[in-house]
Amino acid sequence: MPGQLLARGVCRHLVGHGFVTVEELVPRPGLRVDVMALGPKGEIWIVECKSSRADFMTDQKWHGYLEWCDRFFWAVDSDFPTELLPAESGLILADPYDAEILRMGPESKLAGARRKVMTQKFARHAARRLQAFRDPGVRALLPDETPPG
Amino acid sequence: MPGQLLARGVCRHLVGHGFVTVEELVPRPGLRVDVMALGPKGEIWIVECKSSRADFMTDQKWHGYLEWCDRFFWAVDSDFPTELLPAESGLILADPYDAEILRMGPESKLAGARRKVMTQKFARHAARRLQAFRDPGVRALLPDETPPG
Repeated sequence: MPGQLLARGVCRHLVGHGFVTVEELVPRPGLRVDVMALGPKGEIWIVECKSSRADFMTDQKWHGYLEWCDRFFWAVDSDFPTELLPAESGLILADPYDAEILRMGPESKLAGARRKVMTQKFARHAARRLQAFRDPGVRALLPDETPPG
Repeated sequence: MPGQLLARGVCRHLVGHGFVTVEELVPRPGLRVDVMALGPKGEIWIVECKSSRADFMTDQKWHGYLEWCDRFFWAVDSDFPTELLPAESGLILADPYDAEILRMGPESKLAGARRKVMTQKFARHAARRLQAFRDPGVRALLPDETPPG
């Protein structure tokens, strides 16, 4: 199942936990996360959605995500061979319509300064994309803050 | 000219100042701001868009907005009698396509704790509305964080 559909199910599920979400945020050039979630107490979670064994095996970057969040999770569908995944990460079982947290990622709290920067990045990312939806005429004016990574 | 069209022009113009924007954010129950903008250094501005003299004269709440932002502005079109507006507020001339800041609102910096809360509110507001656009199926799941005010 494509990662984007898993991401949709993950984002729907996280609503029930009081989290809001964005997709494809870029914490730093060269790194793009599938789902970044902001919790009711300002918690920041990252969820990487893996559609297949091959999709997981070719991702060399995941350790780089850990420093940008309080908790890290993989999201996979029910056919995914979960024994491939590192046991020390969180695990979410997802389909396009919903998801379930099977294992919480261990907490490694962000320092205050980085949390502040990430919350602002989250806000800017969400607001720019929202503005492009509510006013399609603005798209040409919006600077590209999210280069491909 | 309807306030929503002025808000569109204001939001387009603020892109050029490096600000991202949301519309109709509710800082506290009973108070709904037309435009809240988040700047490149985390600045928070509020812009109230007034379509007519009557629209302005019936707004008894504007003093209540000041404590939620670093700077406050009125946005009006070129037919508006600007002499009605308090001289100590910022002033933006707007149309549906663009705007111009005629007078900066004086700066009254938010305390750190409130800035943190407002940045998170901004992020949550933007992300929830963005999610409703990218996944219309989620709307029924989203709690209403913005009661009419």
